[in-house]
Amino acid sequence: MDVIVGGGVVGLSIAWRLARSGRPVTVVDPAPASGASHAAAGMLAPVSEVTYTETPLLRLGAASLRRWPAFAIDLATDAGLDTGPGSSEEPFAVPGLDLRSDGTLDVAFGADDLAALDELAAYMEKLGLRVERLTGRECRRLEPMLAPSVRGGLLAPGDAWVDPRRVTAALLTALGRLGVPVVRARATGLLRDGDTVSGVRLAPPAGEIPADRVVLAAGAWSGELADVPVRPVKGQIMRLRSPRPLLGRCVRGIVHGSSVYLVPRGDGELVVGATQEEMGFDTRVTAGGLYELLRDARELVPGITELEVADVVAGLRPGTPDNLPVIGPSGTPGLTLATGHHRGGVLLAPLTTAILLGEESELAALCAPERFRDIS
Amino acid sequence: MDVIVGGGVVGLSIAWRLARSGRPVTVVDPAPASGASHAAAGMLAPVSEVTYTETPLLRLGAASLRRWPAFAIDLATDAGLDTGPGSSEEPFAVPGLDLRSDGTLDVAFGADDLAALDELAAYMEKLGLRVERLTGRECRRLEPMLAPSVRGGLLAPGDAWVDPRRVTAALLTALGRLGVPVVRARATGLLRDGDTVSGVRLAPPAGEIPADRVVLAAGAWSGELADVPVRPVKGQIMRLRSPRPLLGRCVRGIVHGSSVYLVPRGDGELVVGATQEEMGFDTRVTAGGLYELLRDARELVPGITELEVADVVAGLRPGTPDNLPVIGPSGTPGLTLATGHHRGGVLLAPLTTAILLGEESELAALCAPERFRDIS
Repeated sequence: MDVIVGGGVVGLSIAWRLARSGRPVTVVDPAPASGASHAAAGMLAPVSEVTYTETPLLRLGAASLRRWPAFAIDLATDAGLDTGPGSSEEPFAVPGLDLRSDGTLDVAFGADDLAALDELAAYMEKLGLRVERLTGRECRRLEPMLAPSVRGGLLAPGDAWVDPRRVTAALLTALGRLGVPVVRARATGLLRDGDTVSGVRLAPPAGEIPADRVVLAAGAWSGELADVPVRPVKGQIMRLRSPRPLLGRCVRGIVHGSSVYLVPRGDGELVVGATQEEMGFDTRVTAGGLYELLRDARELVPGITELEVADVVAGLRPGTPDNLPVIGPSGTPGLTLATGHHRGGVLLAPLTTAILLGEESELAALCAPERFRDIS
Repeated sequence: MDVIVGGGVVGLSIAWRLARSGRPVTVVDPAPASGASHAAAGMLAPVSEVTYTETPLLRLGAASLRRWPAFAIDLATDAGLDTGPGSSEEPFAVPGLDLRSDGTLDVAFGADDLAALDELAAYMEKLGLRVERLTGRECRRLEPMLAPSVRGGLLAPGDAWVDPRRVTAALLTALGRLGVPVVRARATGLLRDGDTVSGVRLAPPAGEIPADRVVLAAGAWSGELADVPVRPVKGQIMRLRSPRPLLGRCVRGIVHGSSVYLVPRGDGELVVGATQEEMGFDTRVTAGGLYELLRDARELVPGITELEVADVVAGLRPGTPDNLPVIGPSGTPGLTLATGHHRGGVLLAPLTTAILLGEESELAALCAPERFRDIS
């Protein structure tokens, strides 16, 4: 039996795909779907998020985004949710998961921002990515609530987004229907049989669970069970409630040097994210975090001022030294890693499951744990 | 029997004082202590809050502040809380209610602000109020966390503050000990016997309560039961959690033209308030409200950035056309009013009870309902 340690979007996705393929599997998590996946905005935006140094991450993201339509339709079907038309043509949509693919709009304010946007557009085109350079007026025609001071933008028409809370809820439903146990306990250590990992130890009074394989998908906490170079990167995020949708697609911008994005939900909610803070295992919502989000979001879309604050949370992303996830056999028999997804857990969940099921050998090499020494 | 409609700080205080004097009394409120009193910061700062046009309000506030030490000691005693040394000398403190009287510091940033502060100081001295004009350096010596850009300040050494949530909790405890019923139901109308009010009607299935006298202390909702010119004035307020106290006293300032204040609690909490919005019966916490509070509070005390956001609420103050409360017989036999306290419900609670018990005839005239026509 496989034991998956971690009930976030990555661990639950792995468990679901394994169970679907007929393998016996158990999930262990003291509070499933309550960590980084609960805080995540759910942008599936590999193009919009590309940076000059991270083409490997772009390749992973683009490959995973291509897998999202089928992943979402299968998941919505298994969970008994609305799959929509069921086609993977663009723009695709899966209403039951609030998945939409109307693109992401990056906007610029000053002349410097515009020049940077032009350079980025040229770089993206060189990479063969589909992007459209827009004037300020064209941006506002697409998104009339944008600030008048927006000078130009870059539309990544293939980027998508999803509601991560619906995804994890659907995964839990699907696992329930497949008869997969979800043990609500904390894994405190790995059982070993000589050099081989043979299960997990649970916090008292829950005991132990033997396993043929342990898949460590514990996000920022993965380092507590194995020697994997993952650190917590705190993100604070805010959900605003709007009587009617304010935006038709994801909007991002660099404001005061920090990146802010707004993700619209089908029910009118607007997610504003996110801080990136190196604060250890600190999940406090702070005055400074909220201030930064509100200040920057108001610059992009002044109309948010009147919206109700529905929810503010902080989550911990599992960051790695090279910003790439750590997926695959750990080097220790019986222990497989599926962690270190940093800001991309939701986007990369389909690809992660594909790698673990042996369906993506080329990209698997980019994520292989052996690139870090001293993994045990 | 007296029936008090409204279980905020005003209604509960009246009920407590009446019950203490031996009168049979009942309180009616669907959710006691959850409205404006729950949101209030608890500044007892008549001097710091004085404005040029409102000397009647200053007189009321100053008189009520003089009553607070005895009121607090009696209340803490009746509720079984720590009364402290029990003296009313300054600075007085009643630990059980987190009542302290270390003064309020008004600070100024720019040259214009300083000039306004000088004028205000002169005006206050003319009124015979105790204030001290401080340089920026003196302000920071008193409160080292103040922003370096603070240019000067005005200390009102006699101003005080209290935790309104402790006050209402203590009032409910004291009422319980005195055997006063607190009926958790909504009053939907007044019973009448000819021209005389003879009780209150409650939302089904709670029925009716007959009364010799109905005291309407329903705050912003008072206008739903009688023709009293009270309107809701929305206030959003934030509580920050600090590992150690950041301030030793209340600090206020005008930032970007709006007044912001920070009130320290004994447990390290710091209350930041408050917006003033004419939005009807809207109690949504909004992105714009939080932004304004955080922006202005950061200007005063930059160190709040690292504090945890513990709580954000919105309350509705009962505003009146002349900003004075409406206290006394309504003109309709059997109906007495105790409402319209706007921003001063906590400060004015002791005075309000004194007026209703006939202990303050001169100040009672300032609050008399007959100054408004058409009260029924």
